[in-house]
Amino acid sequence: MSLRLDTGDAGFAKAFDALVDDRRESDAGVSRDVAAIIADVRARGDLALAELTAKFDRFDLDAQGWSIGLQECAAAYAALEPGLREALDLAAARIRAFHASQKPEDKDSIDATGARLGSRWSAVEAAGVYVPGGRAAYPSSVLMNAIPAKVAGVDRLVMVTPTPGGSVNPLVLAAAHIAGVDEIWRVGGAQAVAALAYGTGRIQPVDVITGPGNAWVAEAKRQLYGVVGIDMVAGPSEIVVVADAQNDPALIAADLLSQAEHDPTSQSILFTDDTGFADAVAAAVEAHLPTLATQATARESWATYGAIITVRDLDEAMPLVNRLAAEHLELAVDDPDALFAKVRHAGSVFLGRMTPEAIGDYVAGPNHVLPTGRRARFASGLSVLDFMKRTSFLQLNEGALDAIGPAAVALAGAEGLPAHALSVALRLDR
Amino acid sequence: MSLRLDTGDAGFAKAFDALVDDRRESDAGVSRDVAAIIADVRARGDLALAELTAKFDRFDLDAQGWSIGLQECAAAYAALEPGLREALDLAAARIRAFHASQKPEDKDSIDATGARLGSRWSAVEAAGVYVPGGRAAYPSSVLMNAIPAKVAGVDRLVMVTPTPGGSVNPLVLAAAHIAGVDEIWRVGGAQAVAALAYGTGRIQPVDVITGPGNAWVAEAKRQLYGVVGIDMVAGPSEIVVVADAQNDPALIAADLLSQAEHDPTSQSILFTDDTGFADAVAAAVEAHLPTLATQATARESWATYGAIITVRDLDEAMPLVNRLAAEHLELAVDDPDALFAKVRHAGSVFLGRMTPEAIGDYVAGPNHVLPTGRRARFASGLSVLDFMKRTSFLQLNEGALDAIGPAAVALAGAEGLPAHALSVALRLDR
Repeated sequence: MSLRLDTGDAGFAKAFDALVDDRRESDAGVSRDVAAIIADVRARGDLALAELTAKFDRFDLDAQGWSIGLQECAAAYAALEPGLREALDLAAARIRAFHASQKPEDKDSIDATGARLGSRWSAVEAAGVYVPGGRAAYPSSVLMNAIPAKVAGVDRLVMVTPTPGGSVNPLVLAAAHIAGVDEIWRVGGAQAVAALAYGTGRIQPVDVITGPGNAWVAEAKRQLYGVVGIDMVAGPSEIVVVADAQNDPALIAADLLSQAEHDPTSQSILFTDDTGFADAVAAAVEAHLPTLATQATARESWATYGAIITVRDLDEAMPLVNRLAAEHLELAVDDPDALFAKVRHAGSVFLGRMTPEAIGDYVAGPNHVLPTGRRARFASGLSVLDFMKRTSFLQLNEGALDAIGPAAVALAGAEGLPAHALSVALRLDR
Repeated sequence: MSLRLDTGDAGFAKAFDALVDDRRESDAGVSRDVAAIIADVRARGDLALAELTAKFDRFDLDAQGWSIGLQECAAAYAALEPGLREALDLAAARIRAFHASQKPEDKDSIDATGARLGSRWSAVEAAGVYVPGGRAAYPSSVLMNAIPAKVAGVDRLVMVTPTPGGSVNPLVLAAAHIAGVDEIWRVGGAQAVAALAYGTGRIQPVDVITGPGNAWVAEAKRQLYGVVGIDMVAGPSEIVVVADAQNDPALIAADLLSQAEHDPTSQSILFTDDTGFADAVAAAVEAHLPTLATQATARESWATYGAIITVRDLDEAMPLVNRLAAEHLELAVDDPDALFAKVRHAGSVFLGRMTPEAIGDYVAGPNHVLPTGRRARFASGLSVLDFMKRTSFLQLNEGALDAIGPAAVALAGAEGLPAHALSVALRLDR
C-alpha cells in the first residue's frame, strides 16, 4: 500500500518534506572501481577493453567481433514485423521534426558604437550513445539519444552496447539503422564510457556521451565530465499526476503504474482534490497490478515510493508539485493551462485527460530523456543543444575601439593585468 | 624562449600532436580531501563551515561576521574613483544587453494530427557565484557571472567569497552592487561550494553554482555536479592568434602576453605565414616583458607553453586551430570572415586587427567565462542558458491520440512495458 497524505493533516508539512528529501538514488560505492577501470582503459586501450569485456560480459571481442556492422542493422530493420516497423518509423519522424525545431539561431549584429557582436552554433564532431544490454535495451532510447545528435549535425555517431554472451536486441539494431548511427561497438559498462572519452586503438574518441546505464556507467560519465560533455546525471524515473474526480480512475491508475513498472525505485505520486477519487485510483491500481507482466516491479515501487496526496483544491497542489520538480507531470483536468501557468519546475508536462505520459516515451516528439530526482529545478531534457556548442565573436572598428577601449584599459589596470591594458592601449594610440 | 614550429618541418605533425595533447591541468590529487570537506559540511553545516574557515582563511565567522551587507557593497560602489565607476557601469550595461539577447524563446504549436507540442523556459530559483579571494579577485568576473543570472531571472543570487584574515576587495563589492547580488557570505574553498549545494543552517541551498576558483573549488563543483548545476570545468587560460605580416608585431606580442600574464600555465600560440613577422613578434614579446609588473608569470608561461608556428598560408593554419579548440582566437587579418568560416571549435573569436582579446574580458558584452583545454569542441561560454531550464509539454486531443496512440501501444508492447501500453490503450478504447 502506498503512502496516503492530506494537506489538512497535522503532520503534513513534515511528511511532505520527507517525501521531497527522500533520495531514491543509492550511493552505490562504485566510485573507486570505476576510477580504476577508466585508468586501465586510458593506459592500455583495446587490451583493457577486451579483458574487461571478457570478464563482465563473457564475450571475446577478438574472437567474436568488436563491432556490429551497419548492414546487420539494416537487416534487423527489414526483418521487423511491419506494424512495429511503422511504429518505429512514425516515432523517428516525429522525434526528428520536434528536435529540428530546437535548432538555435546564430546572431550577428552591429551596435551603436559600431561593434559587431554575435554568436554562432556548431555541432560537435563526434558523439557516443550508450545503450544498455539485456532487459533495459529499449529501441525508443536509441531513437531519443541518436536522432537529436544527427539533427544537430554530428558527423560521427558512435553507439556502444554490451552484448552479454553475444546476445543482441534486434529492435535496438533496427532503431540504430533508423537513427543513422555510424558505428556500433560491442562494449559496455564503465570501460565503454572510458573508451569513448579517451579513445583506444580501435575506437576513436568522441566529444559528447549520452544515454542511460547502470550505476557504473553513470559514475563513469560523472567522472569523465569535463573530458567530454555528458547529459545530465540520471536517477530512477518518476511521475506526478494532478487529477480531479472527473477522470476515469482506471486511466490514472494506469498512468501511475507506467512509471512504477520501470524499476522498484521509480516513484508515482497522485495529487487530487477528492478523497473518493483517491480511493478509487488506489483500488484501480490494485485491480491492474495482477494483469501486468511487470507486476512484481510495479507493486514494489508503488508500495515503497508511491503516494496519494489529497488537497483542498488543485491550486493548493501546485507549490508542492514545484517542490517535487518531477521528471513527468500530468495535469489531467479540463483546463490544464491554468495549472500549467503555475508550474515552474518539471521535466515534461502532459496536459489534459487524453495525454498519458507513455505517449511521450515513444511517439510524441519531445525527448524522453528528462531530469530526475528534483533536477528539473536546474536541468532540461536532452535536446539538440546537448550536441552543439556556441562560439561568440566580436569585431571592433576604430570607432568602436575608441568608444569602449578606454574602459577596458581602466579595468585591466585596476585588476593588475598590465598586458591586457597594453594590448588595448597600443591600438588606441595608433 | 617559446616553442618554434613550421608546418614544413619533418617532425611537425608529431610536435603539433604533442602541443594539442599537452595537458596543462594538473591532477591536483585533492579529490579525497574535497570529498571529506563536502561530507563534513553536509553533515555538520554551519559548524563545519566555521571550523574550516578558521583553518583555511584565518577568519572567525561567528566573531567577525558571516556575511557582507548589501549596504557595504553600495558604499564600495559610491567610493569608487569616478573613471573606474564609469568603466564598470559601461561594462555592466554592455554585458547586460548582450546576455538579454540570448534569452531563448518559448515554443507552442499544433501539428497535423492536432497534437499540441512545445517547450517553455524558466529561470532557476537560486544561483551561487563563487568569487576567489586574494590576487584573483576580479570585479569583471563578478559581472560576467552575476549579470547573466539576473538577466535569466534568477530570484536569489548568492555570492560566496573567502576573506582571508578579513580582507575584502572593494572592487568586487562594487561589482556585486552593480550586478544585483542578493547575499554575500564570507566563505570560500570546497566548503563554500558544499554549503551552496546542500545548504546549511544559515545558507539556503542554490540550484546552480558558477564562478572560477582554485583546484579545490573546481573539484568540489565537479563532485557536486548533479546535486546542482555547474558551469563547465575550467582550466588555465589560452589564446591562439592567427596573424599576417601586415600587423604591428608589438600589438600581436601584447595580445599573446595578455594571456601569458594570467598564470604560469596559461598558453599563447601564434600562427603566421611570415617568418620575419614571427621573429619580430618574438622580439616584441621580449621587449614588452620587462615593462610588465606581471613579468615573472608572463615569462614563465611564454617560455613553457608559448609557441609560434609558421605556415605556408593562413588557410593551412585553420585545421590546426580547430584541433586546438582554443578558449580565445584572434583572426588579425583584413578579411577575418574568410578565416572565421573555417573555424569550427573556439570559445570566442576576435575578428580583425582592432579587436584585442582583452576587450572581450571586460567591456565588449559576450561572456569571458569560456571553455578551456580543448573543451570548445563540446562546450560553450557562460550564458543565460546556464541559469535556465526548459520544460517540454504535450497535449493530445482525441484525434491526435487516435493518430499516434497505436504506435505507442506497439512499441510499449515490444519493450515489455504493459502498463505503458495500458495507459494509452484504455484511452483509445474510450
